[in-house]
Amino acid sequence: MTTTTAGATTTAGVKIVALAGGIGGARFLRGLQAVAPQAEITVIGNTGDDIELFGLQISPDLDTVMYTLGNGIHEEQGWGRRDETFVVKEELASYGVQPQWFGLGDRDIATHIVRTQMRNAGYPLSQVTAALCARWNPGVNLLPMTDDRVETHVEIEDEGGRRFIHFQEWWIKFRASTPALRIVPINAESAKPAPGVIDAIKNADVILFPPSNPVVSIGTILAIPGIKRALLASQAPLVGVSPIVGGSPVRGMADACLASIDVQSSAWGVAQHYGARPHGGLLHGWLVDDIDKDCALDGLRVLARPLIMRDLESSKDIAAAALELARSLS
Amino acid sequence: MTTTTAGATTTAGVKIVALAGGIGGARFLRGLQAVAPQAEITVIGNTGDDIELFGLQISPDLDTVMYTLGNGIHEEQGWGRRDETFVVKEELASYGVQPQWFGLGDRDIATHIVRTQMRNAGYPLSQVTAALCARWNPGVNLLPMTDDRVETHVEIEDEGGRRFIHFQEWWIKFRASTPALRIVPINAESAKPAPGVIDAIKNADVILFPPSNPVVSIGTILAIPGIKRALLASQAPLVGVSPIVGGSPVRGMADACLASIDVQSSAWGVAQHYGARPHGGLLHGWLVDDIDKDCALDGLRVLARPLIMRDLESSKDIAAAALELARSLS
Repeated sequence: MTTTTAGATTTAGVKIVALAGGIGGARFLRGLQAVAPQAEITVIGNTGDDIELFGLQISPDLDTVMYTLGNGIHEEQGWGRRDETFVVKEELASYGVQPQWFGLGDRDIATHIVRTQMRNAGYPLSQVTAALCARWNPGVNLLPMTDDRVETHVEIEDEGGRRFIHFQEWWIKFRASTPALRIVPINAESAKPAPGVIDAIKNADVILFPPSNPVVSIGTILAIPGIKRALLASQAPLVGVSPIVGGSPVRGMADACLASIDVQSSAWGVAQHYGARPHGGLLHGWLVDDIDKDCALDGLRVLARPLIMRDLESSKDIAAAALELARSLS
Repeated sequence: MTTTTAGATTTAGVKIVALAGGIGGARFLRGLQAVAPQAEITVIGNTGDDIELFGLQISPDLDTVMYTLGNGIHEEQGWGRRDETFVVKEELASYGVQPQWFGLGDRDIATHIVRTQMRNAGYPLSQVTAALCARWNPGVNLLPMTDDRVETHVEIEDEGGRRFIHFQEWWIKFRASTPALRIVPINAESAKPAPGVIDAIKNADVILFPPSNPVVSIGTILAIPGIKRALLASQAPLVGVSPIVGGSPVRGMADACLASIDVQSSAWGVAQHYGARPHGGLLHGWLVDDIDKDCALDGLRVLARPLIMRDLESSKDIAAAALELARSLS
């Protein structure tokens, strides 16, 4: 990257790798594309949120990234398709089929039908994702973290006793209101990174953690053996964007997840969780909101900017700041 | 059955078995229910039209009967759901997924999702059908002819050479315009009647062939080993309703199917195909349209009435005539 006289960043040919969850990651990536239109961006997407419902294989985070970057997303909602209808869901409810808490839209269902059919025909998720992206042209190389089945489950305790439920049930049905005693990415320990994931990290010029959930998005990706090691082995600057602004998550209920691993819900807490590179951690740089500008961690270069993503402009500013911080670390 | 002074038929407790295909059969059955509300009606439905598309297991004829008798049918069209939408189908087309000739509505898809999920969980089609009917309350005992997979395929010859295609492709995509060289219910010879089918025939007081397609609906059901034998062993009057009126099918393209087995497309031709009971055939009685009143076959009692099903009233008249004919044969 070079800085032009106007202060803009030239990113032609620059290889950027970003780990990403759903909405927050996708919106950040849209800003990143806008400020680095000539960069080669590889997105390693979380698949721990994947769930099979009604026999359909659903990859919520991959779809959110694909729809957002492919201009098919429901803008206000942040997930699901624009102009969505819910006829199939209504009909399934008329049959009394459970569960009914998952917002399965008709347009979205077509994606799951294609995915399920290809998966059942033997195609790995990475090839299915590429096939789906052939329609959406997200402009990034979207890779699932793994082709293996990994499902994030949450241990809760309520009148039903102590038990594990799927992350989606905890997140959507319970709205994360029941404390997570543990959050476990089932099968992560025996999963392999999807084809291209490790190579993308090895070849990266810049590595970014968007403001995705540190536990169930970034954390799940890091739980796939080999990914964290590859990140630590890379010489590329690794810059994270804090998902916590002034003690509250930018969006979602990241605080409920952080509590389960005893991490303070603050820009500082998350940075300490990821760790500073000189001390064996992942981060070289940490982008925080202006309100958190006093966040300091030994060995970590911190930059403070407004981090609330209101629209494409604010997403662009945040992405530009992340690249600026990365450049200062090169 | 007894005839009251007013000429109406008392059918309380009378056990009626009807073999049925799709639209024609379903409309006849609705008339039958209306004129024999206290009868116990068992419908043995054709499943040779079943097809798996996009990983969804579709049973068009069973669904047409279920939706029609359950008051969910698209009345004018005769198949599919009322107030149907086609969002999923449009989206699948946007993915470029084939085939696109099958009219897969959103409401209908919910039925297929439930069926597919139950089938994949190990439930036989008969139990799945019962589960679906628990919502629709069709008022009949709807049984698939078999729980085994039987698919009607059609041999055609065109620029693509001589080849077999699924019946649905021939019927919907080709509109039966390419001559059927052969129509083969694949796997019928090794299929078993679904639970309840043979017992229903054994216990029947009246057996009816609605004006369904003699080849790909009734013919396919008769191809399941054991069903024809049970019908022939029954002492109950077996009355058929001609699907051909004045040389033309009441609906559909039955003539194209009849041509494939060298049966004349006429009330007489179809009656001869089924055969008269005294000569080893299936029929005791044959209900034809007024225009075909001269249809005569040795050993067969023929009754002529208007057979065009325009509405519920005409369907009721036809069903009442079929029961009248059956009663005269008892």
